[in-house]
Amino acid sequence: MGINLSNFLSSKSKNKRMTEFQDLNHIDGVSVSCVSANLYKNQRDDLVMFYFRDGANYASIYTQSKIISENIKWNLKQKSKKIFSLIVNTRNANCFTGKQGYKSLEKIAEEAAQELTKKQKQDEDQPQKIKSKEIIFGCTGTIGEVFPEEKIKNKISDLVKNIKYTQNKYIWIKAALGIMTTDTQPKLAMEECSIGNSDIKIFGIAKGSGMIQPNMATTLGYIFTDANIPNKILSKLLKKNITTTFNAISCDSDTSTNDMVSIFSTGKIKHVKINNINDEKIKKFDEALNKVLLNLAKRIVADGEGASKFITINVKKCKTDAEARKIAFSIANSPLVKTAIAGEDPNWGRIIMAIGKAGAIINLDKLSIKFGNFIIVQNGKLNANYDENYISDYMKNDHIDIEIDISVGSKNFTAYTMDLTKKYIEINSDYRS
Amino acid sequence: MGINLSNFLSSKSKNKRMTEFQDLNHIDGVSVSCVSANLYKNQRDDLVMFYFRDGANYASIYTQSKIISENIKWNLKQKSKKIFSLIVNTRNANCFTGKQGYKSLEKIAEEAAQELTKKQKQDEDQPQKIKSKEIIFGCTGTIGEVFPEEKIKNKISDLVKNIKYTQNKYIWIKAALGIMTTDTQPKLAMEECSIGNSDIKIFGIAKGSGMIQPNMATTLGYIFTDANIPNKILSKLLKKNITTTFNAISCDSDTSTNDMVSIFSTGKIKHVKINNINDEKIKKFDEALNKVLLNLAKRIVADGEGASKFITINVKKCKTDAEARKIAFSIANSPLVKTAIAGEDPNWGRIIMAIGKAGAIINLDKLSIKFGNFIIVQNGKLNANYDENYISDYMKNDHIDIEIDISVGSKNFTAYTMDLTKKYIEINSDYRS
Repeated sequence: MGINLSNFLSSKSKNKRMTEFQDLNHIDGVSVSCVSANLYKNQRDDLVMFYFRDGANYASIYTQSKIISENIKWNLKQKSKKIFSLIVNTRNANCFTGKQGYKSLEKIAEEAAQELTKKQKQDEDQPQKIKSKEIIFGCTGTIGEVFPEEKIKNKISDLVKNIKYTQNKYIWIKAALGIMTTDTQPKLAMEECSIGNSDIKIFGIAKGSGMIQPNMATTLGYIFTDANIPNKILSKLLKKNITTTFNAISCDSDTSTNDMVSIFSTGKIKHVKINNINDEKIKKFDEALNKVLLNLAKRIVADGEGASKFITINVKKCKTDAEARKIAFSIANSPLVKTAIAGEDPNWGRIIMAIGKAGAIINLDKLSIKFGNFIIVQNGKLNANYDENYISDYMKNDHIDIEIDISVGSKNFTAYTMDLTKKYIEINSDYRS
Repeated sequence: MGINLSNFLSSKSKNKRMTEFQDLNHIDGVSVSCVSANLYKNQRDDLVMFYFRDGANYASIYTQSKIISENIKWNLKQKSKKIFSLIVNTRNANCFTGKQGYKSLEKIAEEAAQELTKKQKQDEDQPQKIKSKEIIFGCTGTIGEVFPEEKIKNKISDLVKNIKYTQNKYIWIKAALGIMTTDTQPKLAMEECSIGNSDIKIFGIAKGSGMIQPNMATTLGYIFTDANIPNKILSKLLKKNITTTFNAISCDSDTSTNDMVSIFSTGKIKHVKINNINDEKIKKFDEALNKVLLNLAKRIVADGEGASKFITINVKKCKTDAEARKIAFSIANSPLVKTAIAGEDPNWGRIIMAIGKAGAIINLDKLSIKFGNFIIVQNGKLNANYDENYISDYMKNDHIDIEIDISVGSKNFTAYTMDLTKKYIEINSDYRS
């Protein structure tokens, strides 16, 4: 499972959806390093270190699951103002691994702190002593298997040795590949914006194609910026923008025990001080961050396990945000809707079913439904010009847009999902074997 | 789609799960009649009439969906104390058919009332004038297509002509076949019990293999008894027993606009009067009704679209009923759990995931998980003797029992579901084409 950079660059992708991405290059204060700890026993990269040589401000959002992995427990416990490293492993989720899993992280963090402190002494004018609590972890993979402490710990010195202070596009692709599990495509995105007169970069990579669900939609997402933003503001920005991006996607309605999205701000670019999330000066950054998060979230859907179609569900004019969201996800999570779309069947009766079961108050006489530009239902009546032949043609597209107009209020929500195919079943009934 | 009695009797079923059923025979006061209105254009039975020559007390429970079919609107409007007929059609759900759909029912009910009144005059010593409001409807099939009023109305006289006053097992199988859509097996069940010194029969038939979900779990279920129970008590008995039967099953988490379960009591057997649901004299009837409903509900799961395995999820010792229910359905509705079981993979990590995302409060140190008799997790720890080889063998069974012991309270809930297979996708991406 998984591919290395050379295979990836030489392979011609068969998947047409969102396989192109921007080149991420250098971003001040972030180093990326990848190795194989042989967790998959096939020499693919499976261990990635992000190193912030001067530390980074940061914020994270974690899964809403009541059962959380040991690395999330670890991360929640660390209260350092700055973080020096994020270490991500695949193959093992470090969940339901109990004390063994947690203690492994202690030891790995200790090892990393030592190696990075040595590196500081070698390379920095004012070397800092890095502490293990200044390191956080991302883990993804199978639940309940003994965490491979030794394999990972033994590779920490190699990770540190590989650190370079200038990053190119290949190291970012390597990192995006290195954190993949059942993903078929690496997920990268970037935006440039300004804060005051300063040019700012926002880079992001993500991983995820199964267990993707509304509540803290998934998966691993890591955002890096050279802006200088305090932890509190980072946290608010992340929370605000996750709602319409990572929390607006659903592949199979399942939520992982390991979901984690983090943002790291190295502060390498000097700019006007930001103390308030409503500050006009942060507006462009806010928008750019949303773009990066949405870009990554859409890539996760597009690469959803077995997906053959990308589905956008735009629910308009509800009484409340919550009702718009409920209807959008009721459609996005309906196996009957998703299989109909897989079969290129414009079965709008199943959309009606999914709207009905969402439990929101509906006035049928005001309901309108569109597939792409085709009006199917208007004001509660089947469109007199409805011609299934045209719509059947539309269903052959690999992007399907569904618009539901409830017409009882002013609140909108857009959810993104994929179709449900035989391939999904294949991937998920064979995952471990 | 669908089969007639002769095909059914001559076919050797390939499906091993719950294809055997009890013989339903005569029950006083109920007549069953089936015809083909050619709704499927293949001459299968698609229209079934249940006729109560002296009327019947009755109660119904309908879908929780906010969008309901026209027949449910019709049924909700009729406030008659007794019902003389239930007419069920397949192929067309009469949902999102607006005035056309509702008016069609008015006309069909009128026609049936006239024909049945004629029949009364012919056959009864004290003939009654049957009114259209004494007739209710069950509809199932595609949403949003024009309701085939003429085709159905034209067959009412044939339905009435076919009425016989003694029923045998074949007419019941014919009826159970006649209400099927994507079902592969007719669903029948019966129990005998006593009220006081009187012997009572409870017969039931059901239909449903897709859009099966917790909230008023589905589908069509019709229960017939020769007991004499007032409407109010019938309603309470049905509500009480639906929770652990039809509302304890889930195939794909989708809810239909047409779900309907009804009970009809002909009162032909004289027995002690029942005025109270807590009356000791009704206890055996209550238990027998539960058995019939559970039997039918399990048959629906066993025949779930594409199902290869029947899964029982037994959640024990929760703080509240609601939490037990939430955890059971979080597992039952998880595509990742259902595909793992389809793949015969004892992937208990996904069970952990599903427990976590249910949102109930969990003490991991008390959690235990069993697959069949195999203890996998005990008091939050992976069983030291856990041997995946044994459990992999267990997973080859076509009944899989999962037991989750939360150990924080005293409330239990059992949910029934099926695995998620490629066949499900196949059926549901091709349903209309």
